Amino acid sequence: MNANDRAAIVGVGMTEFSKSSGRSVEQLALEAAQLACADAGITPTEIDGIVPFPLGPSAEDMMAGLGLPDVRFTAVSHMGGASSVSSLGLAALAVQEGYADCVLVFIARNGSSGARIADRVSSLPGQRFRKNLEHPFGFSTPAQWYSMWAQRHMQLYGTTREQLGAVALTMRENAQRNPHAQMYGKTLTMEQYLAGRPIAEPYLLFDCCIETDGAGAVLVTSAERARDLRQTAVSIAAVTEGHADSPDDIANRRDFFNVGLTKAAPRAFEAAGLKPSDMDLAMIYDCFTFEVIQQLEEAGFCARGEGGAFVQDGSIAAGGSLPVNPHGGLLSEGHIAGMNHIIEAVVQLRGGAGDRQVADAHAAAVTGWGDMGDGSLAILTA
Amino acid sequence: MNANDRAAIVGVGMTEFSKSSGRSVEQLALEAAQLACADAGITPTEIDGIVPFPLGPSAEDMMAGLGLPDVRFTAVSHMGGASSVSSLGLAALAVQEGYADCVLVFIARNGSSGARIADRVSSLPGQRFRKNLEHPFGFSTPAQWYSMWAQRHMQLYGTTREQLGAVALTMRENAQRNPHAQMYGKTLTMEQYLAGRPIAEPYLLFDCCIETDGAGAVLVTSAERARDLRQTAVSIAAVTEGHADSPDDIANRRDFFNVGLTKAAPRAFEAAGLKPSDMDLAMIYDCFTFEVIQQLEEAGFCARGEGGAFVQDGSIAAGGSLPVNPHGGLLSEGHIAGMNHIIEAVVQLRGGAGDRQVADAHAAAVTGWGDMGDGSLAILTA
Repeated sequence: MNANDRAAIVGVGMTEFSKSSGRSVEQLALEAAQLACADAGITPTEIDGIVPFPLGPSAEDMMAGLGLPDVRFTAVSHMGGASSVSSLGLAALAVQEGYADCVLVFIARNGSSGARIADRVSSLPGQRFRKNLEHPFGFSTPAQWYSMWAQRHMQLYGTTREQLGAVALTMRENAQRNPHAQMYGKTLTMEQYLAGRPIAEPYLLFDCCIETDGAGAVLVTSAERARDLRQTAVSIAAVTEGHADSPDDIANRRDFFNVGLTKAAPRAFEAAGLKPSDMDLAMIYDCFTFEVIQQLEEAGFCARGEGGAFVQDGSIAAGGSLPVNPHGGLLSEGHIAGMNHIIEAVVQLRGGAGDRQVADAHAAAVTGWGDMGDGSLAILTA
Repeated sequence: MNANDRAAIVGVGMTEFSKSSGRSVEQLALEAAQLACADAGITPTEIDGIVPFPLGPSAEDMMAGLGLPDVRFTAVSHMGGASSVSSLGLAALAVQEGYADCVLVFIARNGSSGARIADRVSSLPGQRFRKNLEHPFGFSTPAQWYSMWAQRHMQLYGTTREQLGAVALTMRENAQRNPHAQMYGKTLTMEQYLAGRPIAEPYLLFDCCIETDGAGAVLVTSAERARDLRQTAVSIAAVTEGHADSPDDIANRRDFFNVGLTKAAPRAFEAAGLKPSDMDLAMIYDCFTFEVIQQLEEAGFCARGEGGAFVQDGSIAAGGSLPVNPHGGLLSEGHIAGMNHIIEAVVQLRGGAGDRQVADAHAAAVTGWGDMGDGSLAILTA
């Protein structure tokens, strides 16, 4: 037990994932929200708090679409891909302090058929740095931004292309046990991985996650109310966020790899009263392969510089010491900015993950990774 | 005492107000933040939480500009003009739950020389309603949006143009005691008010607040730490937000005047353990004259339909039963989306408002009013 075990996730919902949904993001968001309510056994009009993603439908869209009579809390976390997890923290705050009883956290994107992230830089937290310092040099897409981290790590620690490939292959293998994954039924070999077309050195095609149309939603309520609901409550033991020493990725930080997650992780584990070795699985924000390696290191699952070996020796695979992203992650299930990571953690902790169930899963870490070195970490237990 | 008296405002800072600052919003924000730190006796690097306004500089801009080494909490309230007050609530939440020790809340706008609100509809909470349902009919500026409320109230309750004028004149008179106000030294008579050029029926020129370049910032910390700091701490007794039954201003709500503040106000007073009649002054979000009348009614300072008489009989003037906006408000000091209302409340509760000091000011209500009927209310005490 600890001070933060006062809020819980009691319902999850997710739409189909596709390359072209044929529907608006509002429709996707409403479907995910309704599925989460059905999962929890909660009437949508009981929702009195909303934490939307910075891109996509607003709180007002959900009030109108679900006909919510009395919303008492709204807030947005502007941390790019770290927002999914930090949004969960805002929902927990609201519930813990009595600002709201039932908070909807959701992400809906037509990330494949609609506007791409690179087109939406003005919405990202580091917009001014991107526009003024990076765009003029043609440094303008996520694959480029993130490739720099990988390059630096390869230079400093000898991380190899095959180690990046081990992440891609593990996520693809996991997706073969998840019919919801976009890469279900599509296996990947190291030969195919290495033959992928170059995107941004060192990233090849299969180092990059899948732009996806889809939505996911979770409902957060008090631990007390959660006990009376239908599903096994998944307790929010801790959520923390952190920011790099400098928000500019290409400036000289004192320590390039000292990012938001580096700071957020010890705080989360301390608040939860748990250690990295207590985690039965980890959901790592895998926008690109290397970011899995980096976050495993910065979250404390292995030492800095050892992440390459850690992913290559099978530790993160099914049956390994720390199964990572059993659903296939952003790389092979789909990219809805990490909301699917939170949902998979809940499904696993409830013991309902079927063929991909991690045995005896009682504690999961979920990371978020945003631009400018923003990071977040949730520790969930059941 | 009550459950929410655990966070306090310990520093305030504000730049000059002008029609053309000649500086970026980032520069304005940094100046306001530094002034707030100096006021509190806090080193800027102690800031570990940031709640920016939805328009303007981001948390990352402040991290870079102030050189903040370890920010642990960020969040944004997307409630238009209700965001100033609801942002204070997010800061209080963070402090109360130990997510951060010292939270910067700020608003910086080049609202006069830069982009106008009507140009930024895509950033407002009700953007989809505005764009799809209203813009096609030429209903596209704030003066138009807000004029509808006034028209309806005049029709239902017999509110008069002279009662709107009473708000404009009271704010202008207040500004004569505030050298920081843009309308300092510029008096206004009822004849001049009534001769103002029409903007959007029933609004004339002086019904509309002043688009302004400027910035304001406050620092929020724990009640415990506040006791050790330089200034008289202003306690955050309660902050609440509320949303209208339907976020669409022009659809048929069950009750047109049942807006966010109608719901937020009783919750705030209950949380603070205080009544409207306990307030020594009120800071009312005066984007247009009528909104003062409406909010006085919905916050519970007078009955619905009686706001016109309330403002006309001198109740809201200096020396009245409920002095409103002693600084001159958005109408006569300047429009930085209500951050100046929070700052004025703090200055008054500290007893440092000089010529415009409200006698024995120990409790103040501060409202926020956003698009789509969004509302917020803070109760501050000292």
